[in-house]
Amino acid sequence: MKTQAILLASRPQGTPTPEQFQFETRETPALTTGQVLLKTRYVSVDPYMRGRMSAAKSYVAPFEVGQPIAGGVVAEVIESQSDSLPVGSTVVGNLAWQEFNVADAQTLNSVPVDKAPASYFLGLLGMPGLTAYFGLLDICQPKAGETVLVSGAAGAVGLIVGQLAKIKGCRVVGTAGTDEKVSHLKALGFDEAINYKTTPDIAKALAAAAPNGVDCYFDNVGGAITDAVYDLLNKHARIALCGQISTYNATETPTGPRPEGKLLKTSTKLQGFIVSDYLSRWPEGIAKLTEWYAAGQLKGEETVTEGFDHIPAAFLGLFKGDNTGKAVVKVA
Amino acid sequence: MKTQAILLASRPQGTPTPEQFQFETRETPALTTGQVLLKTRYVSVDPYMRGRMSAAKSYVAPFEVGQPIAGGVVAEVIESQSDSLPVGSTVVGNLAWQEFNVADAQTLNSVPVDKAPASYFLGLLGMPGLTAYFGLLDICQPKAGETVLVSGAAGAVGLIVGQLAKIKGCRVVGTAGTDEKVSHLKALGFDEAINYKTTPDIAKALAAAAPNGVDCYFDNVGGAITDAVYDLLNKHARIALCGQISTYNATETPTGPRPEGKLLKTSTKLQGFIVSDYLSRWPEGIAKLTEWYAAGQLKGEETVTEGFDHIPAAFLGLFKGDNTGKAVVKVA
Repeated sequence: MKTQAILLASRPQGTPTPEQFQFETRETPALTTGQVLLKTRYVSVDPYMRGRMSAAKSYVAPFEVGQPIAGGVVAEVIESQSDSLPVGSTVVGNLAWQEFNVADAQTLNSVPVDKAPASYFLGLLGMPGLTAYFGLLDICQPKAGETVLVSGAAGAVGLIVGQLAKIKGCRVVGTAGTDEKVSHLKALGFDEAINYKTTPDIAKALAAAAPNGVDCYFDNVGGAITDAVYDLLNKHARIALCGQISTYNATETPTGPRPEGKLLKTSTKLQGFIVSDYLSRWPEGIAKLTEWYAAGQLKGEETVTEGFDHIPAAFLGLFKGDNTGKAVVKVA
Repeated sequence: MKTQAILLASRPQGTPTPEQFQFETRETPALTTGQVLLKTRYVSVDPYMRGRMSAAKSYVAPFEVGQPIAGGVVAEVIESQSDSLPVGSTVVGNLAWQEFNVADAQTLNSVPVDKAPASYFLGLLGMPGLTAYFGLLDICQPKAGETVLVSGAAGAVGLIVGQLAKIKGCRVVGTAGTDEKVSHLKALGFDEAINYKTTPDIAKALAAAAPNGVDCYFDNVGGAITDAVYDLLNKHARIALCGQISTYNATETPTGPRPEGKLLKTSTKLQGFIVSDYLSRWPEGIAKLTEWYAAGQLKGEETVTEGFDHIPAAFLGLFKGDNTGKAVVKVA
């Protein structure tokens, strides 16, 4: 069977551009025992993929130039040589940006599409949900009445962090880059939300939004917002360092005020993490998130782009702040 | 009784100078019930006191201008209205820089001078020892075979950290500021020691000294050495942020390369702390340190300045790197 594939054409210097992506028609291999043929339904685009486009050593292996880009995909089994995944099953897996993929059934997880929309298994009930869950609940361990600050709050992970913090009884403050996102955060239950792009003095605005200081900081963006948060930390604050999207496209080492003195004075714990650090606890996390979703305490939020051809644009949009909640591409 | 006292004459801008100190003769108050009159034997000078000389909010209250500076003191009871502390007892407490002090017995701890030299209760078996103990063993939790890097390794805390790391079976690398200190570190069992002042490329030297990367970093100094260590962190590294002496005298916010991206990629935990965070566990720490000292596994190391009049000079010497091990002043 023929399939469209999206290859990494070249490695970006700085912000990626459409030139980094190359469409190609490929032939899918014949199925062998234990394999399934998959029709892509939803493709996930995520900031961490920027790191994989570089050759530099990071926490996941780089993409190869001339090979398909890969990531989280929800797909339907349309041909099966696996007893565990019959035709018609919906699965999630790490798959190539192709309309069709052949994969070993054992590398895929079946998803219960009767419980939530299929795309949610790339967001609220997938990697971003688990990232929010472990980063906030395991690293920050917020207590009722504490103030939780989330940067990139309208992003896939940030929106879930804020909702989880509200479930835990915290005051929740978020930063985002448009007034629309700010309204959305407030509608979702955030106590305060700040448009960092239009606020002239972000440090002052954050201080006003967190009058009792910051106990937990879930950082998705880094840079100037994070600098300002460091000045608001309470004694024994906890920081979950999840992402630094403001610096991912930097071509030189970003510099700024040194945070160590502030972390020292407040006995703050700062923990970098990636969701795979918690692999053994994923079933626990998925079960809890699904429970809160079913109870109506957690909402899934998405920005859906339509069409396989628009995957690169949806990915590039992450760095322009185009998405609210999880950015996914509906392919079929 | 009359006593000499050393007052804070003015708050320093940048590096403190002798002008910040003022000698004055004061009268000690008469004893009331439960109090003792103390003759100062040893005075501790410590980098954290620089913070207390500023008015800025920090983890301990600022010293008052025109009032005596205070800190760790070992003293002998020469007059007593307390049943628990008879004349002749040796105690440690937080006391003014005076030749004589009056204090409530309940604010003092008796020290067993039969077990170790009296001054050691300001160093190995006092606050610096406990700082090393909790920072290394609780925050970093080094495992046998791991690499532990210590900056300011020849200082009061650093020397103990290195020895504790050797007890735990680690490879230990230290940085210090003179060749004499480097030799001393090696004699104490450090696997590698680097003179950061004479090494042209500190990053390269640290990389060579830690060929398997850094698992634990105990940071006393901050600045350029710390920047270089961030590039050597192994996955799941742990950093105990104990001091930042390289920046304590800075008059503007120190800047440098942002560490967050590196901490994120390696899932590193960085924890700022002060020894009082562990107050409830001090008895455990003192007991363990005393046990290792008695067994000959830990050595106390001091730089002793003689004479009450030289307390300011001994304090100022901390910022010039004059001391190896704990800096104390022998008063009587």
